[in-house]
Amino acid sequence: MNEIARNSTRLDSYVDRYAARTKGMTASEIRALFAVASRPEVVSLAGGMPNISGLPLDIVGNAISDLIAHQGPTALQYGSGQGDPVLREQITDVMRLEGIDAHPDDIVITVGSQQAVDLVTRIFCDPGDVVLCEAPSYVGALGVFKSFQCDVVHVEMDADGLVPEALRQAITAVKAAGKRIKFLYTIPNFHNPAGVTLSLARRREVLEICREADILVLEDNPYGLLGFDQEPMRAMRADEAEGVIYLGSFSKTFAPGFRVGWALAPHAVREKLVLAQESATLCPSSFSQMAISAYLREHDWQGQIKGFREMYRERRDAMVDALATHMPAACTWNVPSGGFYVWLTLPPGIDAKAMLPRAVTARVAYVPGTAFFADGFGSGSMRLSFCYPTPDRIREGVRRLAGVLEQELELRETFGAMSPAPGLNPRSGYDGPSTDMT
Amino acid sequence: MNEIARNSTRLDSYVDRYAARTKGMTASEIRALFAVASRPEVVSLAGGMPNISGLPLDIVGNAISDLIAHQGPTALQYGSGQGDPVLREQITDVMRLEGIDAHPDDIVITVGSQQAVDLVTRIFCDPGDVVLCEAPSYVGALGVFKSFQCDVVHVEMDADGLVPEALRQAITAVKAAGKRIKFLYTIPNFHNPAGVTLSLARRREVLEICREADILVLEDNPYGLLGFDQEPMRAMRADEAEGVIYLGSFSKTFAPGFRVGWALAPHAVREKLVLAQESATLCPSSFSQMAISAYLREHDWQGQIKGFREMYRERRDAMVDALATHMPAACTWNVPSGGFYVWLTLPPGIDAKAMLPRAVTARVAYVPGTAFFADGFGSGSMRLSFCYPTPDRIREGVRRLAGVLEQELELRETFGAMSPAPGLNPRSGYDGPSTDMT
Repeated sequence: MNEIARNSTRLDSYVDRYAARTKGMTASEIRALFAVASRPEVVSLAGGMPNISGLPLDIVGNAISDLIAHQGPTALQYGSGQGDPVLREQITDVMRLEGIDAHPDDIVITVGSQQAVDLVTRIFCDPGDVVLCEAPSYVGALGVFKSFQCDVVHVEMDADGLVPEALRQAITAVKAAGKRIKFLYTIPNFHNPAGVTLSLARRREVLEICREADILVLEDNPYGLLGFDQEPMRAMRADEAEGVIYLGSFSKTFAPGFRVGWALAPHAVREKLVLAQESATLCPSSFSQMAISAYLREHDWQGQIKGFREMYRERRDAMVDALATHMPAACTWNVPSGGFYVWLTLPPGIDAKAMLPRAVTARVAYVPGTAFFADGFGSGSMRLSFCYPTPDRIREGVRRLAGVLEQELELRETFGAMSPAPGLNPRSGYDGPSTDMT
Repeated sequence: MNEIARNSTRLDSYVDRYAARTKGMTASEIRALFAVASRPEVVSLAGGMPNISGLPLDIVGNAISDLIAHQGPTALQYGSGQGDPVLREQITDVMRLEGIDAHPDDIVITVGSQQAVDLVTRIFCDPGDVVLCEAPSYVGALGVFKSFQCDVVHVEMDADGLVPEALRQAITAVKAAGKRIKFLYTIPNFHNPAGVTLSLARRREVLEICREADILVLEDNPYGLLGFDQEPMRAMRADEAEGVIYLGSFSKTFAPGFRVGWALAPHAVREKLVLAQESATLCPSSFSQMAISAYLREHDWQGQIKGFREMYRERRDAMVDALATHMPAACTWNVPSGGFYVWLTLPPGIDAKAMLPRAVTARVAYVPGTAFFADGFGSGSMRLSFCYPTPDRIREGVRRLAGVLEQELELRETFGAMSPAPGLNPRSGYDGPSTDMT
């Protein structure tokens, strides 16, 4: 009996007592597979863990040692619900790299930007409210929206990101159905999972559409400073202060282990976010915030990010080269200009989720596309991460994946299009968030 | 124009778009006063900040330095949503001091125990569900319950804690009204804010009542190891594993700046809590957890707690001595056997919230009793904290407070019972949580 089946038959004496919102909190169907995928012999192209091996541990260690010696009683104490004023000031410098001119008073520190998505949804969304998301969208955000009983409406993307005309149509359709749109959730830079970037012209157009329709934009930007080919693009928030909540994070540009992200919000919204933060955690960790503050002060953090960009570019190159070399002709993928992810579309009739157990057996893992849709779509696609494994491992992983795909295609040739594996319904394939899939 | 008035008249273009739950998230009416109360010349008997000046900063600094040097790549990376297995194992040792025999697999690490209250409420409570709380109860928990649109029903306490007969009556009344009780929220040891401790006989009785009525117990225990006169009392969870969720915290026994607490829950509930944690934050901070783990491993933490107990006992003594010396005859208070708080009941006709501005002018601050009720009661009481100021400052603060009270009593003598200050309605005096009031 496998673990999934055991879990579902385990007696839960509280089963009648949970809140309705827990129906939206479900364990990933593929979680058991990821436990296998974490074995060293498996090349995981599934995870979104940054590669932090290049961090200067001596500098980080010394900065934190000094912090405890000189500011210990503050670092170890409760802080403000809004977050450390010194760090908030430094964050304005970080955001200035993307053209944002912000006041520290409009920033709220969060437990990673994941918590920022949670708090924004908490203050805006009643059950049944609509959140517009790209198709596909970040699995962790979809999990939050689902846990607050929102209706997610996906909006088409292409190589230049969100398609403005599709956004217009979605807004019209939702309004015609009498539903309330609370915000557009978008990842404009180096999209997770799609790898694409919203063009500058489209940023203006999307802002204009949302302004006209009176729709708030939630601009989630964990990867904006990790472009490979150019300077950071101008944030949407840089051109629209009242209609945009901007989310940033140190998880990809420094280290996720501190769990420090932030929201930059219009002033009135910021006040609500602080109240929500106080209710959720009293305050974010003083220690984590001051450790990051010390790192920013005492290290060439922009030089460090430059190093990260070069390291990730090399891995991106390894992945797209290997894809070009090994993948069957009918596969397509994009070449991301930054971030962590390639979105791979499979030949017609191949189901990425159904194929996953066979891939893991062949010692390679990925995240099936269905994880990134709230409505079960995406079975013909997958997300491949190039952030964590070394270039050699990436090449080996892609080679293994191509082998599995070749076998699938042979089977399809022999027996016709595959049906999904038993119990895996491609129309209800949404998977809850997991740190394996950040 | 004062700050409160400015805030309430500030234009908020999002005012029609917030979720219904934000109605339960309101800024404390007394927050502006606390900004004044944080001035050095004011003796604050209001805050719940632990006094961590006795912590061995050299040991903490070295432990964290070693951590980064030897386990940096793990400490700086994402961790599991449930929390670090090594720390969870160590937490079983901490809980064993209160008679709890737990498996690390049933523990979920949270961002302080505040987040544990939030996650438990999130998975159990639909709008309108009833949560039973002591009268008074912890302001931060009341804020969570309100933000999830729960109905709080207060249950009477006396010097031995929650009154079993009152609990029976409350359950009967709520059930008769056709409402669902989701859990009893209780702080059995050194109650915040009431200072009382639930007797052993009553623990058994409360468990029995809740078992019979099929009501979950949420046992919140941040202060259990901080008793002044005896060894830690046996936790309710020690005698009932299936019907109790136990919450613990390192904020008072070590340091709050890491924001690390935990929930020990029945297995099925634990699974839901992990899903909720992943949705809220992906995972708690690896760095914070491993720092605490290193501290527990490398320091005589039980000896440290013994030191805290002696330090807090001395402050408790200073407070109750000063109260006996200075307070007008008609005041009553308890003598807590541990924790941080004394609950003071004023002479009839004196309103603690109305008096607060005058107290702050006289350079002493406290939290009015209304903050600890969801229903506006408590105006004749206040919480006095002895955790943070030195014994001399505590004595001086109580002396000032007594002076203010004497003046109030004279006014009452002259003009009759006071009405509350304009705009401060004693029936709607609930104050949102604030780190000033933890």
